Amino acid sequence: MDIRAEARQMKLQAPVLAATSVEERNAALLAIAGALEEKKDEIFAANHEDMEAADKNLVSPAVKKRLKFDEGKLRDVIAGIHQLVSLPDPLGRDLLHRQLDEGLELHRVSVPIGVIGVIFEARPDALVQISTLCLKSGNCAILKGGKETRNTNRILFKVIHDTAVASGLPEKCLVQAELHNEIDELLSCDKDVDLLIPRGSNAFVAHIMNNTKIPVMGHADGICHIYVDKAADPDKAIPILIDAKTQYTAACNAVETLLIHRDIAPSFLPGLKEAMADAGVRLRGTREVMDLLGDDKEENVMAEEDFATEYLDLIASVKLVDDVKEAVDHINRYGSHHTDSILTEDRDTAEYFMQMVDSAGVYHNCSTRFADGFRYGFGAEVGIGTGKLHARGPVGLEGLVTYKYKLYGTGQIVGDYASGKAQFHFKDL
Amino acid sequence: MDIRAEARQMKLQAPVLAATSVEERNAALLAIAGALEEKKDEIFAANHEDMEAADKNLVSPAVKKRLKFDEGKLRDVIAGIHQLVSLPDPLGRDLLHRQLDEGLELHRVSVPIGVIGVIFEARPDALVQISTLCLKSGNCAILKGGKETRNTNRILFKVIHDTAVASGLPEKCLVQAELHNEIDELLSCDKDVDLLIPRGSNAFVAHIMNNTKIPVMGHADGICHIYVDKAADPDKAIPILIDAKTQYTAACNAVETLLIHRDIAPSFLPGLKEAMADAGVRLRGTREVMDLLGDDKEENVMAEEDFATEYLDLIASVKLVDDVKEAVDHINRYGSHHTDSILTEDRDTAEYFMQMVDSAGVYHNCSTRFADGFRYGFGAEVGIGTGKLHARGPVGLEGLVTYKYKLYGTGQIVGDYASGKAQFHFKDL
Repeated sequence: MDIRAEARQMKLQAPVLAATSVEERNAALLAIAGALEEKKDEIFAANHEDMEAADKNLVSPAVKKRLKFDEGKLRDVIAGIHQLVSLPDPLGRDLLHRQLDEGLELHRVSVPIGVIGVIFEARPDALVQISTLCLKSGNCAILKGGKETRNTNRILFKVIHDTAVASGLPEKCLVQAELHNEIDELLSCDKDVDLLIPRGSNAFVAHIMNNTKIPVMGHADGICHIYVDKAADPDKAIPILIDAKTQYTAACNAVETLLIHRDIAPSFLPGLKEAMADAGVRLRGTREVMDLLGDDKEENVMAEEDFATEYLDLIASVKLVDDVKEAVDHINRYGSHHTDSILTEDRDTAEYFMQMVDSAGVYHNCSTRFADGFRYGFGAEVGIGTGKLHARGPVGLEGLVTYKYKLYGTGQIVGDYASGKAQFHFKDL
Repeated sequence: MDIRAEARQMKLQAPVLAATSVEERNAALLAIAGALEEKKDEIFAANHEDMEAADKNLVSPAVKKRLKFDEGKLRDVIAGIHQLVSLPDPLGRDLLHRQLDEGLELHRVSVPIGVIGVIFEARPDALVQISTLCLKSGNCAILKGGKETRNTNRILFKVIHDTAVASGLPEKCLVQAELHNEIDELLSCDKDVDLLIPRGSNAFVAHIMNNTKIPVMGHADGICHIYVDKAADPDKAIPILIDAKTQYTAACNAVETLLIHRDIAPSFLPGLKEAMADAGVRLRGTREVMDLLGDDKEENVMAEEDFATEYLDLIASVKLVDDVKEAVDHINRYGSHHTDSILTEDRDTAEYFMQMVDSAGVYHNCSTRFADGFRYGFGAEVGIGTGKLHARGPVGLEGLVTYKYKLYGTGQIVGDYASGKAQFHFKDL
């Protein structure tokens, strides 16, 4: 497939999709939910092929769980589509309505971003979620999923695309890319693609960010911290630390570094060590920490620069700090502005931390694993942004829209305002 | 000056500036307004040196008007600061407040972007506007102004910076770069600088965009269009076209291409030609247009690809189209998504145009020159964005903030929600 030609056609059809009514978009979504149910035997058969290939390639059980698309996952994605249909239209909202002068009215109106390229991991449910989020928000999308679910992706895409087009949406509302070299073609489409959302390994996302002029929303790494303050409640702290590290170790919002207030370290560390050991987590840390833990293995002793490490594994870094200020400085220096949490019963210390830490998510007395579109009540998410511009944190429907200014005049020229013949009288309506 | 070291220090001080109250920031702004008035003789003397250098370099009167900083400009920038003080605090706004579960509350709160690099043309009033906009929005800024007003910039910066720091804002809230090679250093500070706003020539902005990993807000070119529909009122159309082309020819929002409905071309073009000639504007166009205009000069005949030209001069491109749809397709293909206008008395045609044109500003029956922060009632602007992400069109205070998510818990872990032991009950508060 010629991705550049596809993107060019998409760009020209994007205003047509943007101009559809929410009733048309919702009708298409409901038809897609119906078609997925109707074609489920074909879909499960395709997934069966992918699972057989996974077995042949000795894929681990944890990964196979993600590749699997069964009745349960189908039920979930269909429920997700119905939830999406129930959400209000993100388009056409009047964000500003101002009279600049008699007969000269300015509107700021929400509109889709346009053409979005999403590159995502091998998870069939992700394909359904992303494509339906894009359609609800009036965005055309080029979708490239992981090759391990190629057969499932192909049938899911066909069902979704054909149903969308049969429902009256433009032919090029969705395009599927299947080959890895098509990603490089996609990266060169900066005239036609408005936004890229890459999901996957750090190295992969960093490669995308470094090789395109298209704006990228996402995150390369997720070095999340939890600071255990001297006023922390140990009964809350230990379960939160275990959850943040182990509930889904490979997730970007899993914790990597534990910062412990020096005053409580002697009493807190032994219990932490025991709980982490029970959960299969290896602790690394500064020499001071290792001494307190009675661990003399050199490979567990960390130098300062080692704290920029994302393990995505059952390993955690531990460091002692003098106070919340030192914790904040460490996080702002070594963190990836993703999600960081403070455990303390002192509300002022918590407020200081949440004000000063420069991250998309700052938490008090809870696990960093809550950083997720579903858990924030956004419905599905297309990704999590750690940049500062546009959408940050979990990105749902709202992050897929921008706005345009509409100015309605009756013959006004700027010369009259420059000469003083006419005056602005700004009045919000 | 070592810009990289300055940026690193700024990054660490940015949370301190972000944490100041609006009273502190407003007090600093009022002190700056007072100091500018108090030091005006020194400022005017410095500007006198710059103006003498401009004379020596035979700078044109039009440009000298921009370099000049006199009582009138001082009065304007001081009035601008007072207006800025009167605007509500853009920071700390609660954009979302949702209970996820009992004792687990999510807030989305507006915060500054952080560290912004602004590179702007030789206009002393721009330095004052940009620095005070950044301070009001709690952003640290690295400022690099045009070298033609070096002396004026230096004293203005010193007055503003010293007064801000004396008012209690952090030492590194503002930094001035003076040397051209410091721009290249700035471009490499992607770990510490959150946003670049370049203003200047197309080539310069394109150079910035192509040579940094830092997100860039702005626009390289401004190919703006006006479509004269068959239902246009010629009495409105001619003055609007003249204003859009000539009121400030070098501005990015000046019109470059006129699209004329074929049905009215024979009656409309002669009057247009006469009015444009009176205003000193040369018309170029397709062979068909030139024949209608009775102009047989080959250099005025345009090929299709010539319509991607931004003149920034007293020249306009003219093309005939069959209908509004062809006009929209031309604009979406050759425009720069800046500002485009339709002249028509047919409201439905206008709505179609404004829906389908994929630009930051879409206008009806008025001049493209209205695309400006002051004219939109935003107070000052830091620039005009033609990208789709974050801020679009004229960018004022609102475009200089982002948000963070604050999640307040009481010991919650994700494991309990995954196992079904706990359930989310999203409730907006």
